[in-house]
Amino acid sequence: MTAASSRTRTRVAIVGGGPAGLMVAHLLHLAGIDSVVLDNRDAHTISTTHRAGILERDSVRLLVDSGLDRVLRDGHRHEGISLRFDGTSHRIDFEDLAGASCWLYPQTDVFADLHRARTAAGADLRYGISDTEVADVLTAPTVRYSDADGHRHEVTADLVVGADGSRSVCRALVTGATQFFREYPYAWFGVLVEAPRSAPELIYARSPAGFALISQRTEAVQRMYVQCDPGENPDDWSDDRIWDELQTRLAGADGFRLREGPVIERTVLPFRSFVQTPLRHGRLLLAGDAAHTVAPTGAKGLNLALADARLLAEGIERALLKNDAAGLETYTDRALDRVWRAQHFSYWMTTMLHRAGGESAFDERRQLGELTSLVSSRAGSAYLAEGYTGWPVR
Amino acid sequence: MTAASSRTRTRVAIVGGGPAGLMVAHLLHLAGIDSVVLDNRDAHTISTTHRAGILERDSVRLLVDSGLDRVLRDGHRHEGISLRFDGTSHRIDFEDLAGASCWLYPQTDVFADLHRARTAAGADLRYGISDTEVADVLTAPTVRYSDADGHRHEVTADLVVGADGSRSVCRALVTGATQFFREYPYAWFGVLVEAPRSAPELIYARSPAGFALISQRTEAVQRMYVQCDPGENPDDWSDDRIWDELQTRLAGADGFRLREGPVIERTVLPFRSFVQTPLRHGRLLLAGDAAHTVAPTGAKGLNLALADARLLAEGIERALLKNDAAGLETYTDRALDRVWRAQHFSYWMTTMLHRAGGESAFDERRQLGELTSLVSSRAGSAYLAEGYTGWPVR
Repeated sequence: MTAASSRTRTRVAIVGGGPAGLMVAHLLHLAGIDSVVLDNRDAHTISTTHRAGILERDSVRLLVDSGLDRVLRDGHRHEGISLRFDGTSHRIDFEDLAGASCWLYPQTDVFADLHRARTAAGADLRYGISDTEVADVLTAPTVRYSDADGHRHEVTADLVVGADGSRSVCRALVTGATQFFREYPYAWFGVLVEAPRSAPELIYARSPAGFALISQRTEAVQRMYVQCDPGENPDDWSDDRIWDELQTRLAGADGFRLREGPVIERTVLPFRSFVQTPLRHGRLLLAGDAAHTVAPTGAKGLNLALADARLLAEGIERALLKNDAAGLETYTDRALDRVWRAQHFSYWMTTMLHRAGGESAFDERRQLGELTSLVSSRAGSAYLAEGYTGWPVR
Repeated sequence: MTAASSRTRTRVAIVGGGPAGLMVAHLLHLAGIDSVVLDNRDAHTISTTHRAGILERDSVRLLVDSGLDRVLRDGHRHEGISLRFDGTSHRIDFEDLAGASCWLYPQTDVFADLHRARTAAGADLRYGISDTEVADVLTAPTVRYSDADGHRHEVTADLVVGADGSRSVCRALVTGATQFFREYPYAWFGVLVEAPRSAPELIYARSPAGFALISQRTEAVQRMYVQCDPGENPDDWSDDRIWDELQTRLAGADGFRLREGPVIERTVLPFRSFVQTPLRHGRLLLAGDAAHTVAPTGAKGLNLALADARLLAEGIERALLKNDAAGLETYTDRALDRVWRAQHFSYWMTTMLHRAGGESAFDERRQLGELTSLVSSRAGSAYLAEGYTGWPVR
């Protein structure tokens, strides 16, 4: 083994500097526990990769309670969504039905807030590294990596957090873990467009041509999605074709029209649901996409990552400051209880609104029967509102 | 054409003398409109064929408001059901959640009440006929049939109601109709057992071995079901095997045990969902299983038939007494709005509680995630309670 150019000792090594890893580091810092954050990506790449945009009520509380209150100024509080089918929109009023709201505040902003706070606190953040190896997770966790000049470095810690995303290397270190997968026969074609807002809140639209989602970013830039084939090539879609598809899926007797403009980014998002259990192996703990990914419908991914980070930070604090491992021992069960509810919620929102392709005419009508039942039932609408704005911590 | 032995003129010819047909006849009689009911089966066969056992709130109201109040004395009011999974029962309290109850009152009793009332009123009921033909539904509806001695008879009417069940001959007379089907990869193995009640209300159980339903009939006879293969042969199941399967699917940490006894009837119920539209063709109107069948989970079949009968009787009354066809013109849309909600409700109850066989481990966990979400949410539980006890007329 080559001698390391540097050796650092810290309480918690956090592999992955996205929102999950940075939130764990941030909460540990507030509890007086030092950590080192390591990520193969550079911070600029993370800060400019467009991802989810909706925060649950408790995700916003976590940000605000930990001193990150820009969301209250720059985010947009959404008190509902619209479900649109048969050419008519039906508003689900979250405040009325569930006494809660969600916030439009993109993942890039959550990252920026956490990164700024950690940097201002003089945190040890190591982005742009490579050849990361995590070893000895049962005894004395050690992370080794190469810096931009090819020099090897070593970080040793009491605990290591694997928050290294959907292509996690930490995940594989949980020996004997069980993995659960689900594939869906569709994907989302997502675009950023330069156009004014077409609606004040998100519109989830079910149409004979397939699903569409109308979201927002700023006054001048909007985020929209259409259901597409998983093998779709984004470069095959001209601006005209994109707007045609969107307008067709949103069309209705009410004359609703999207406000159009140039498409400035286009990507295909796969639908892949994944859960690994347990989330703990000795002194290694997984959080966020490293442990579970959800279908994008219903915007649960980032919220699950932040919920994991909160539970995990509490468990680590109790373990390291009070020598009580209970929070770490119950972490898997408590986190996965929420994860499986969210997996079902995402599946429900997905299957209620998408066209499966091979589905029968019966199932299309049944799907409309469900949507009709849901929007005409206060209880059904409240059940959706609760799931969308987030389940309480337990 | 052979000359008919008898010719009868009536206002409404009703093909099918099960609960749907008899309820239409009963309600028309109360409005002063005469009808003739015709059925290939004999009344004894219908009265002894065990079918559904749960009436929605409005089905009970319809019986009572039309003078058939034995349900209030001999039926059992159920203010909830239990959902059982992971070996624990979770009560869904219908009264608390939806302000409504349902009633355990078997279809055979509904038939008996209607048959007795019609007979007491001197109604023209023709059971045990054969070779039924329905003709001229666009102009002058005529039903021809053979009696037990082989003589042909003819009934002419202003309108003809096709309430002749899932093997309907009337259905095919709606030319240009659209039919929707759905098959499920499972069936129910249903038994009648001589045993005391094991529980005061229905138990819907999801277990690793598959679905089971515990229902009741009387103090001494109970109705139970286990999910089975659609090709299952009931004769392959010994009493011991039936009780083993039931006990396994109901087993739990709470030590719950079913009270056992001799199995006195065993049948396999297929899962087949079907809807035909429109329900009207000229002077022919379809009702009940002739127009739609649902999966048995959630007990919607008989309730849909009674809801059809009420809507249809109102429409016929308006047409024949007030010369206003609006009720018949809107009948298809009004009836099918409820039918498609019920199709979704039955699908939801079915897929939430059954093992599909080819399902992934992911989907098993997700299914438990849904059940956990549902029973821990008042809104979710209320949505189920509303659907189970029945949607209001609209």
